[in-house]
Amino acid sequence: MLAKIHVTLKQGVLDPQGKAVHHALNDLGYNEVRDVHLGRYMEIELEGVEASEAEARVRDMCEKLLANTVIESYRFTLEPQN
Amino acid sequence: MLAKIHVTLKQGVLDPQGKAVHHALNDLGYNEVRDVHLGRYMEIELEGVEASEAEARVRDMCEKLLANTVIESYRFTLEPQN
Repeated sequence: MLAKIHVTLKQGVLDPQGKAVHHALNDLGYNEVRDVHLGRYMEIELEGVEASEAEARVRDMCEKLLANTVIESYRFTLEPQN
Repeated sequence: MLAKIHVTLKQGVLDPQGKAVHHALNDLGYNEVRDVHLGRYMEIELEGVEASEAEARVRDMCEKLLANTVIESYRFTLEPQN
């Protein structure tokens, strides 16, 4: 089973890295860029666990380690893996 | 228009951060975790550009700034934004 996880900053939280990329893109001449938000993307391969159980386990992993839930939110999908 | 960009390491490139997260998850008792791959996720808001043109521009942004194409690969989607 493959978990695909996105961790992004919550609305309203300052995103200095996003601002830096935004300004760099504008400096390179990409003036159509109005805003940039940066986040983390993770793929976690799970073995020997049922889909229903995997959902709870991945949520737990996000809450305990993968996301700082004070300033970040997370979402994930679970896909069977051949 | 909203570009959603994923930048991940190419196959075969060492992923020390992924390994670190993998070991941390195992140490926390998530032994079902077999492997972890970390990447970057970006959302870029574009204004005043047509979809056809946006595709080429975002590809250009990835090649020039957002991805290190020696060790990373990127993929993106473009969505209309209300």
